[in-house]
Amino acid sequence: MAKFKLDEIDHQILDMLIENTRVPFTDIAKKLLISAGTVHVRVKKMEDAGIIKGSSLTLDYKKLGYSFIAYVGVFLQNTSRTSFVLERINEIPFVTVAHVTTGKFNVFCKIRARNTEHAKDIIFMLDDIEGVYRTETMISLEESINDKKRLMHSIFNDL
Amino acid sequence: MAKFKLDEIDHQILDMLIENTRVPFTDIAKKLLISAGTVHVRVKKMEDAGIIKGSSLTLDYKKLGYSFIAYVGVFLQNTSRTSFVLERINEIPFVTVAHVTTGKFNVFCKIRARNTEHAKDIIFMLDDIEGVYRTETMISLEESINDKKRLMHSIFNDL
Amino acid sequence: MAKFKLDEIDHQILDMLIENTRVPFTDIAKKLLISAGTVHVRVKKMEDAGIIKGSSLTLDYKKLGYSFIAYVGVFLQNTSRTSFVLERINEIPFVTVAHVTTGKFNVFCKIRARNTEHAKDIIFMLDDIEGVYRTETMISLEESINDKKRLMHSIFNDL
Amino acid sequence: MAKFKLDEIDHQILDMLIENTRVPFTDIAKKLLISAGTVHVRVKKMEDAGIIKGSSLTLDYKKLGYSFIAYVGVFLQNTSRTSFVLERINEIPFVTVAHVTTGKFNVFCKIRARNTEHAKDIIFMLDDIEGVYRTETMISLEESINDKKRLMHSIFNDL
Amino acid sequence: MAKFKLDEIDHQILDMLIENTRVPFTDIAKKLLISAGTVHVRVKKMEDAGIIKGSSLTLDYKKLGYSFIAYVGVFLQNTSRTSFVLERINEIPFVTVAHVTTGKFNVFCKIRARNTEHAKDIIFMLDDIEGVYRTETMISLEESINDKKRLMHSIFNDL
Amino acid sequence: MAKFKLDEIDHQILDMLIENTRVPFTDIAKKLLISAGTVHVRVKKMEDAGIIKGSSLTLDYKKLGYSFIAYVGVFLQNTSRTSFVLERINEIPFVTVAHVTTGKFNVFCKIRARNTEHAKDIIFMLDDIEGVYRTETMISLEESINDKKRLMHSIFNDL
Amino acid sequence: MAKFKLDEIDHQILDMLIENTRVPFTDIAKKLLISAGTVHVRVKKMEDAGIIKGSSLTLDYKKLGYSFIAYVGVFLQNTSRTSFVLERINEIPFVTVAHVTTGKFNVFCKIRARNTEHAKDIIFMLDDIEGVYRTETMISLEESINDKKRLMHSIFNDL
Amino acid sequence: MAKFKLDEIDHQILDMLIENTRVPFTDIAKKLLISAGTVHVRVKKMEDAGIIKGSSLTLDYKKLGYSFIAYVGVFLQNTSRTSFVLERINEIPFVTVAHVTTGKFNVFCKIRARNTEHAKDIIFMLDDIEGVYRTETMISLEESINDKKRLMHSIFNDL
Repeated sequence: MAKFKLDEIDHQILDMLIENTRVPFTDIAKKLLISAGTVHVRVKKMEDAGIIKGSSLTLDYKKLGYSFIAYVGVFLQNTSRTSFVLERINEIPFVTVAHVTTGKFNVFCKIRARNTEHAKDIIFMLDDIEGVYRTETMISLEESINDKKRLMHSIFNDL
Repeated sequence: MAKFKLDEIDHQILDMLIENTRVPFTDIAKKLLISAGTVHVRVKKMEDAGIIKGSSLTLDYKKLGYSFIAYVGVFLQNTSRTSFVLERINEIPFVTVAHVTTGKFNVFCKIRARNTEHAKDIIFMLDDIEGVYRTETMISLEESINDKKRLMHSIFNDL
Repeated sequence: MAKFKLDEIDHQILDMLIENTRVPFTDIAKKLLISAGTVHVRVKKMEDAGIIKGSSLTLDYKKLGYSFIAYVGVFLQNTSRTSFVLERINEIPFVTVAHVTTGKFNVFCKIRARNTEHAKDIIFMLDDIEGVYRTETMISLEESINDKKRLMHSIFNDL
Repeated sequence: MAKFKLDEIDHQILDMLIENTRVPFTDIAKKLLISAGTVHVRVKKMEDAGIIKGSSLTLDYKKLGYSFIAYVGVFLQNTSRTSFVLERINEIPFVTVAHVTTGKFNVFCKIRARNTEHAKDIIFMLDDIEGVYRTETMISLEESINDKKRLMHSIFNDL
Repeated sequence: MAKFKLDEIDHQILDMLIENTRVPFTDIAKKLLISAGTVHVRVKKMEDAGIIKGSSLTLDYKKLGYSFIAYVGVFLQNTSRTSFVLERINEIPFVTVAHVTTGKFNVFCKIRARNTEHAKDIIFMLDDIEGVYRTETMISLEESINDKKRLMHSIFNDL
Repeated sequence: MAKFKLDEIDHQILDMLIENTRVPFTDIAKKLLISAGTVHVRVKKMEDAGIIKGSSLTLDYKKLGYSFIAYVGVFLQNTSRTSFVLERINEIPFVTVAHVTTGKFNVFCKIRARNTEHAKDIIFMLDDIEGVYRTETMISLEESINDKKRLMHSIFNDL
Repeated sequence: MAKFKLDEIDHQILDMLIENTRVPFTDIAKKLLISAGTVHVRVKKMEDAGIIKGSSLTLDYKKLGYSFIAYVGVFLQNTSRTSFVLERINEIPFVTVAHVTTGKFNVFCKIRARNTEHAKDIIFMLDDIEGVYRTETMISLEESINDKKRLMHSIFNDL
Repeated sequence: MAKFKLDEIDHQILDMLIENTRVPFTDIAKKLLISAGTVHVRVKKMEDAGIIKGSSLTLDYKKLGYSFIAYVGVFLQNTSRTSFVLERINEIPFVTVAHVTTGKFNVFCKIRARNTEHAKDIIFMLDDIEGVYRTETMISLEESINDKKRLMHSIFNDL
C-alpha cells in the first residue's frame, strides 16, 4: 500500500462506482472528461493493486424471507482452535460476518435467518462445532444503518 | 413479498450477478440461453419489486488505511431517544452498521477507523451524542469472514 | 390456609378438574362414587376458600399469530416507584407475567408478541414508563415446557 | 393456520370462555343469540384446528403451601444436549415453564417451591442433570401480574 | 418452634443477656423483680428449646492482627459436590461464614486474614478444593456495621 | 496494639471464654491453676486494651421466625454519600452486617428477614435511602458455617 | 519516527543503559570499542529524537510502606469529561498509571497505597471527581512481573 | 524494613535521583552542601537495604513502533497452576506487568504490541499456556498517565 497512491481522478472514478457499480465506463469518462480507455486502465490498476476487490449485490433480505438478524458471541475452549473453528463457521452460509475479537468473546459472528426457529438451528450449529465452549446471542430488532457509502466518500475526501 | 415469486431463471440471473455485479447482460443471456432483453426485463422487475436494492463496491479498507474495526454497544438514557440517536449516529460516516438490539445494549454499531487514535475519536463522538448514556467497545483482531455470497446462494438453493 | 384442610375426595375432584376444567360434575360424581351435589358443594367450598381461583383457556398462541416470547428484565430508577411502574406495565396486555425479583433486575416480565417488530414496540413501551431506567431482553427460541399439571398432581400426592 | 379464519362469532365465544371456561354452552348461546349447537360446533372446530388446546385450573399456590417462585437460568455444556436436558427437566414437576433462550442462558426455567429449603433441592436437581454446566437463580419477591386474559382480549380485538 | 412461646419475662431476660451475656442472674432477677431461680429456669428452658444456642466473645480482630476481611464467591463444578466442598471449607479456620446461595455463586464465604498475602493463601486454599471450579473475591475496605443487637431487640419488640 | 502482648495464660483464658462466655472465673482459675483474682485482672486488662469488646448471645433465628438470610450489594450515586448512607442503613435493624467494599458494589450488607415478603420490604428500605442508586440481592439457601471459634483458636495457636 | 533509524551501535548503547542507567559513558565506550564522545553524541541524538525520554528510579515500594496495589476502573458520566477527569486524576499522586480504555471502563488506573484504609481514601478521591459516575476496584494480591527490560531487549533484537 | 529509617538527607538525595537518575553525585553533594562521599555512602546504604532496586530507562515506545497497549485478564483452570502460568507468562517479553488479583481474573497482565495483529499473537500466546482457561482483553486508547515521580515525592513528603 505504501507505494500505491490514488490521485484525484481515481477518487472521482471510485465515487461514481460507489454510487452505482454498474455504471458504464463511457458514462464515467463523459462526466470526468477523460477517455473511456483511461477509466478502464485506472479501474484495472486499482483492481490489480487490490484496492477494488469486487462488488456485491445489495438484496432485500426481508423480501427474500430472511428478516431475522442476530449477533452471536462465541467462546472457544482454547484459542489454538481459532482457525479450525473459523473454517467450520465458514461452512455455515447464514454466518455473513465473523471476527476474532478482544473482550468477552473469542469470535463474534453476524447471522441472518428466516425466523426464530431457524436462528435457533444456526446457533445450535455454532454451539456444536468442536472447540466451541459456549455462545451468547443478541438479537437485532431493527437494522437501522447498513451503509458503507458514507464511509467511502469520507475516505476519499480525506485522502 | 407475498405475491412476487422468483422463478428458476431469476435465481440463475441473481447467481451470476452475485458473482460479479458488472457482468454484461449479454453474457448472462448467452449463458442462460435467453435474450439480453429478457435479462434486462427480469432484472428491472426485481429492482422494481425491491428485491435488488443496488450494488456496492468491495474495497480493501486496509489498503485505504482503514484497518481498525470495532463493535460499539450503545446504552441509551431512554429508548424514546432511539430515533434521535440513530440520526446522529448516521452523521458519523465511520459507523457502517447500526442495529437496535435486545440484551445488554440498546444500539449496536460497527465502526471502521484508521487506528486506535481515530477509533477513540469515533467512540467519543458516539459517547457525546445527547441521550447516549454509555458505550462499550469490542475490538476486532481479525476480520475472518465478510461474505454474503454463501448466504445468497443458499437462499436461492432453498427457494 | 391454616384452618382449611383438603381431604382425599377434594384431591380427586381437583385431579379431574386439572385434567379438564369443563368435565361435568356428574362425570366426577360417577367416577368417585359420590353424588353430583357433593361435588358441587366441595368445589364451591374450595372456591370460597380461595383455593380454586378460576380456570383459564389454553390457546395456541402461534396459531393466533403470537409466536414471539421474550423475557424482559426491568431496572427501576428507584424501588419506591415499583407500584406505579407495575400499574403501567399492567396496562400493556402483551405482558402476561411480571414479578418483583431479587438479583439483577427489579421487575421481570414475560411478553408475547407477533414478531420481532412487535416485540420492539412492547419493549419500547416498557422502557418509556416513567421510573424505568433500563431494560434487558432475553428471547425465547422455543417454549419447551409450559405445564402446571405435573406440579398440581405432585402437590396433591404430597399433601 | 394460514387457512383457518376466526370470525366475529368465534371471537365472542372465546371471549366468554376466557372469562369462565366452565360457562355452559347454553349461556353462551343465549348471550350471542345463536343456538347451543352452533356454539358446540364452533368450539369443536376451534379445538380441531388446535386453536383451543384445553383449559387449566387456576389454583392459589400460596394457599396450597407453594409460595416460593424462582427463575433458574441453565447453562449447558453443549447445546447438543438440549433435548436430553429438557426431558430430564420435564421429570421435575416443580418446573412449570422452560424455554430455550438467547443471551446468557441456554435454558430458562420457572419453578414453584414450598420454601427456600425446597427451592434449594429443586435447583440442585437441575444442577445435577447430566449435561448441565451451571445454573443461576433469581427469586421472585412478589408475583405482581400473571394474567393472560388481557392478552387474549387484545388479540381478538386486533384480529 | 410452633409450640414454644416466649412471654414478656423471657423477652426482658433475653434483652438483658443480649446487652451483656455475662450479667449475673441475680442482677437480672433484681431488675425484673423475680427470683434468680426463675431466671435460671427460664434461661434453661430457652436453651433446651434451642432458642439460645450459646454465646460468643466479641474480639477486636484488628488488634489481634487480623484486619483483612474479604467475601469470596465460590463456583462449584457441580452442586452434587456441595456437602463435600463445605466440609473442606470448614477445615479452613479463616472462613468464618459460608452460605449456599442463589444467583451467581454456589457458595459464598466470609474470610478474615492478616493481610493481602495471607488472604491470597486462603483464597488459593479455597480454589484448590476438589470440586471448586473458580472463585471471585470482593475485599472489605471497612467493616461499618457488625451488630446483631439491633435485630434482636427488634425481634422481641415485634413478638 | 503494638505494645500490648498476650501471653500463654491470656490465650488459655480466652480459649475458655470462647467456648462459653458465661463460664465462671472460678472455673477458669481452677483449670489454669491460678487465682480467680488473676483471671479477673487479666480479663479486665484485655477489655481495657480493647481486645475483648464484649460478648454476644447466639440465638436460633429460625426458631424466632427469622429464617431468611440475604446479601444485598448497594451501589451509591457517589461515594461521598457513603457515611450518610451507612447511618441510614444502621437504622434498619434487619441489616446485621455492612461493609464498604471493592469491586462491583460500594456497600455490601447481610440481612435477616422473616420471609420473602419481609425481605422485599427491607430491600426496598435500602433502595429508598437517598444516595442509593441500585441494589442487587443474593439469597442464602442454607447457612452452612457461622462460626468464629475456629478462627479464634487458630489465632491463639499462631500467636 | 519515519526518518530516524537506530543502528547496531545505538542498540548496543541502549542495551547497556537498560541494564543500568547510571553506567558511565566511558564504560560503554570501552565495551563497544568506540570513543566516549561518540557515546555522548549518540545518546544525545536519541534524546533529541525523543526515543530516550529519561530514566526512572526503581524503588522498593513495600520497604517504603506502600505495599498495596490496586487497579481501578472508572466510569464517566460522559466521555466529553475525559480530559477534565484525567487532569483531576493527575493531581492524585497515588495514581501511577491511567489509560483511556475500550470495553467496560472509560478510564483505567493503577494505584499504590499504604494499606486497605489508604486505598479506600484514594478510591473515594477518584469517586468524588466531578464527572466520575462510578468506579470498580480489583486488588493485586502479588505483583509477579514488573519488568520492561525483557521487552526492550526484544525490541532491539527485532529491529 | 522496621529498623531502617530514612532521614531528611536521604529524602533529598532520592528526590534528586528521582528527577534524573544520571545526575552526578558531585552535583547532589553541591546542592545539599555535603561531600560527594557522603552521597555515595548513603546511596550505597539505600541500595544495600533494598530501598533502591535499580533504575530503568524511559523509552518512547511509540517511536520504537510499539504503540499498542492492552490489559489482559487471565482466568486459570485452577489456582494451583498460578506459579507455573506466571513462569510461562514471564517468557513472553511483551508482557511488562503481571499481577495475581482478586475479583474477576486470576492474573492480570499489561502488554505492549506493535499493532492489532501483533496484539492478537500475544493474546493467543497467553491463551495457549497450559492451565489458562480463558482471557479477556481491554485495549488502551491512550496512555494518559505513566508517572511514578508524583508518588515518590509524595512518599518522601509524608515520611
